[in-house]
Amino acid sequence: MAEEKLPTRAEDFSEWYNQLVVKSDLADYSPVRGCMVVKPYGWALWENITAWLDGEFKKTGHVNAAFPTLIPLSFFEKEKEHVEGFSPQLAVVTHGGGEELEEKLVVRPTSETIIGYMYSKWIKSWRDLPLLIVQWGSVLRWEIRTKLFLRTAEFYWHEGHTAHASAEEAIEEMYRILDIYERFSHELAAIPVFKGPKSESERFPGAQVTTSIEAMMWDKRALQAGTSHYFGTNFSKAFDIQFLNKENTRQYAETTSWAISSRMIGAIIMVHGDDQGLVLPPRLAPIQAVIVPIFKNEAEKGRVMEAADRVFSDLKTAGIRIKMDDRDNVSSGFKFNDWEFRGVPVRVEIGPRDVEKGTVALALRDMPGKEGKIFVPQADLASTVSGLLDDIQASLLKRATEYRDANIHEPKDYEDLKRIVADGWAFAYWCESLECEARVKEDTKATTRNIPVNQPEMEGTCIVCGRPSRRKVYFARTY
Amino acid sequence: MAEEKLPTRAEDFSEWYNQLVVKSDLADYSPVRGCMVVKPYGWALWENITAWLDGEFKKTGHVNAAFPTLIPLSFFEKEKEHVEGFSPQLAVVTHGGGEELEEKLVVRPTSETIIGYMYSKWIKSWRDLPLLIVQWGSVLRWEIRTKLFLRTAEFYWHEGHTAHASAEEAIEEMYRILDIYERFSHELAAIPVFKGPKSESERFPGAQVTTSIEAMMWDKRALQAGTSHYFGTNFSKAFDIQFLNKENTRQYAETTSWAISSRMIGAIIMVHGDDQGLVLPPRLAPIQAVIVPIFKNEAEKGRVMEAADRVFSDLKTAGIRIKMDDRDNVSSGFKFNDWEFRGVPVRVEIGPRDVEKGTVALALRDMPGKEGKIFVPQADLASTVSGLLDDIQASLLKRATEYRDANIHEPKDYEDLKRIVADGWAFAYWCESLECEARVKEDTKATTRNIPVNQPEMEGTCIVCGRPSRRKVYFARTY
Repeated sequence: MAEEKLPTRAEDFSEWYNQLVVKSDLADYSPVRGCMVVKPYGWALWENITAWLDGEFKKTGHVNAAFPTLIPLSFFEKEKEHVEGFSPQLAVVTHGGGEELEEKLVVRPTSETIIGYMYSKWIKSWRDLPLLIVQWGSVLRWEIRTKLFLRTAEFYWHEGHTAHASAEEAIEEMYRILDIYERFSHELAAIPVFKGPKSESERFPGAQVTTSIEAMMWDKRALQAGTSHYFGTNFSKAFDIQFLNKENTRQYAETTSWAISSRMIGAIIMVHGDDQGLVLPPRLAPIQAVIVPIFKNEAEKGRVMEAADRVFSDLKTAGIRIKMDDRDNVSSGFKFNDWEFRGVPVRVEIGPRDVEKGTVALALRDMPGKEGKIFVPQADLASTVSGLLDDIQASLLKRATEYRDANIHEPKDYEDLKRIVADGWAFAYWCESLECEARVKEDTKATTRNIPVNQPEMEGTCIVCGRPSRRKVYFARTY
Repeated sequence: MAEEKLPTRAEDFSEWYNQLVVKSDLADYSPVRGCMVVKPYGWALWENITAWLDGEFKKTGHVNAAFPTLIPLSFFEKEKEHVEGFSPQLAVVTHGGGEELEEKLVVRPTSETIIGYMYSKWIKSWRDLPLLIVQWGSVLRWEIRTKLFLRTAEFYWHEGHTAHASAEEAIEEMYRILDIYERFSHELAAIPVFKGPKSESERFPGAQVTTSIEAMMWDKRALQAGTSHYFGTNFSKAFDIQFLNKENTRQYAETTSWAISSRMIGAIIMVHGDDQGLVLPPRLAPIQAVIVPIFKNEAEKGRVMEAADRVFSDLKTAGIRIKMDDRDNVSSGFKFNDWEFRGVPVRVEIGPRDVEKGTVALALRDMPGKEGKIFVPQADLASTVSGLLDDIQASLLKRATEYRDANIHEPKDYEDLKRIVADGWAFAYWCESLECEARVKEDTKATTRNIPVNQPEMEGTCIVCGRPSRRKVYFARTY
């Protein structure tokens, strides 16, 4: 229940976020360092995220499977960059069944290695390809400084792992998934993203290409909201994933991996939330509409509840995720604040006068205050609410897109870039050298986010060194 | 692909099972001792199991959430029986992020402790009760001798954890879940089960009452296929889960926990499978019907594929989980065996003569050979197949029930009990003493399975010691 007041976003965005996540019942701190508890309200949100993604993956020929949570430590040593990247983050199991283990095991931080090992057993011929497997679950990466959903030691995700007969097919897969991620962000999370390859220094350990979707939070920092990697034959060589091709020659498979994690929930909070609390996009909200019946005495209660029950049943039948708030120990005003705080898109208020007039009052979460309050007939309410949910979904995306675009600038020169990334994103030509990227990071704390696809091929000059450059990149400070 | 022959069940049931699980692509051995890989075909079966259970839990007011995979070792020491039961099975994380941990963590073998800890923070008042949370995921219990699905170190499950204001409500919850488990077994898995409380010695560590559903496998051994526990206040005292009741007095909550695991897949294999391979109950089968088009040349292919595509589309539209087997590198005979081996309930064969006559040949998996082969019109095929799937579902349950009942006997005396449990189950009065139970186990290796609910209250005498007894129990050798 949301009785305590949050700091405003402008006062302290970080503290606003931390308090909001816990007080809105999305998640809680656990007694295990760095690990969170995802509470039922947060998990229902995650289930809506996963249901859509799982459906899209299945439509595109992917299947789910499960690989062990524990992976032999030695597996990580087979791919050089991979072990360097993950060694500092491993949780190591040294004892099992009361005895010290001969071979140490780690709680998986990601599963390329064990899945690669199995793929080497399963893949024999080009007929076994492509192999398109997704695993849903959690992984663990030891983190010192954590923040609920955004950076926790254990987090929840899917990890797709695919093997292909050619580089072309693998790269096509990487982008097919990136497109699904973009559609998810736009259509479900109402978060505009840029998609494209990341710089060499920002690649996943072991990847030849890492692509990402990148979103702007309210504080104008960037969040990498999903990644899709092309490994070439790095992992198939490390784990000997070979197949007989159509010419009957042994060949290494080309592999990919990709993920969206529970961090997406952090993005939803930080993009849409306001000083009153969460604002959840209707397509993902666990509760899309809440009914608050209002009455002062038993006589009123009878009439109001009759109408409220009817409305509840109409909306439920129409497939709207609806909740009746019939708590008798808190006031209506408390309930209004509570559901506003928890980000429910539409609040349906029904009092004695609404019953008389055959109307209800609706409060729309995306427009706090009087502007978002409308009075509509009870008749055909389900279609009214469905339409409003669509409107809110669209308006959240529009607002987030406008906000983002208003805060991205193309710098005239390097000094201008420094000013821009202090409070926004810069979009600029970059020569793709590690040196220039490192200089920006040192001078401004901003990093390259990604090189968006579908840029017009133009000649420009690197914003840092002035050398010729053909592609622009986003620079931003990041989570 | 199922080219190699299995031993028959009569020749070597254990080996039949081990080979079938792997060759039918349900699961594979992993490089991590005791842990399995659940392959896409097996995971699709598990998803069908979980979807139904998740739906039933939600209908009865339960919500999902996620708690950390790692639990402080010290938590297990707070409940005496719990730590004794689980200590020998723990996998212990001693290092994280490159350093030795101050507090050792274990990979969860079950989550009563960490969930109890969180409940103590969340539950303040009777208004917070009942709290009905389910977690889906995997747990790890170190096992030396493993068998895919039946006993693996890591296994997949849901674990329900509920807290209530009174013992009555908690016990009611325990039985409500047991009823859901029974309905799942009967209606989805087509496996008849007995439900009821287990003996004191067979209780879950820390439980006051453990109830189970018990099924008979083809080899007449028993399998505990699901459990539902009542803890009284054991865990709420260990973790200080207290609430202010309606009289404004602090009181310990009454808790339950319950689970069905991926072991259920083992039961499905061992109850329904035959010497030709898997037999999957239609309501759970990942593929309910498979189409095998048959042709010798391109001209035939055109006509056959046109009909096959139409049938595919009709069946898919009707919601049947349908697959087209259009492989061009194996013979039709190979395909027949392959899908039979993988337990697909209905095979739809379409050849040139079928196209001419407007018919298809159907092979029903529950009746191998000519008996299960029928010829039906293409017109209205979706409703024909739907009806047959229902028939197969019912016939599997009927057959399993008859088999089970034919192999349960009521012993005249203790010598008779010994004979019976050598190749079946005994149903007999038992005085509920540990001594008599232990004697049966020592003499026969059979254990008490459960004391089925809804027995007529009759006076009898313990089959072991002859003392008065009012309830009968099942004795059986078990997995």
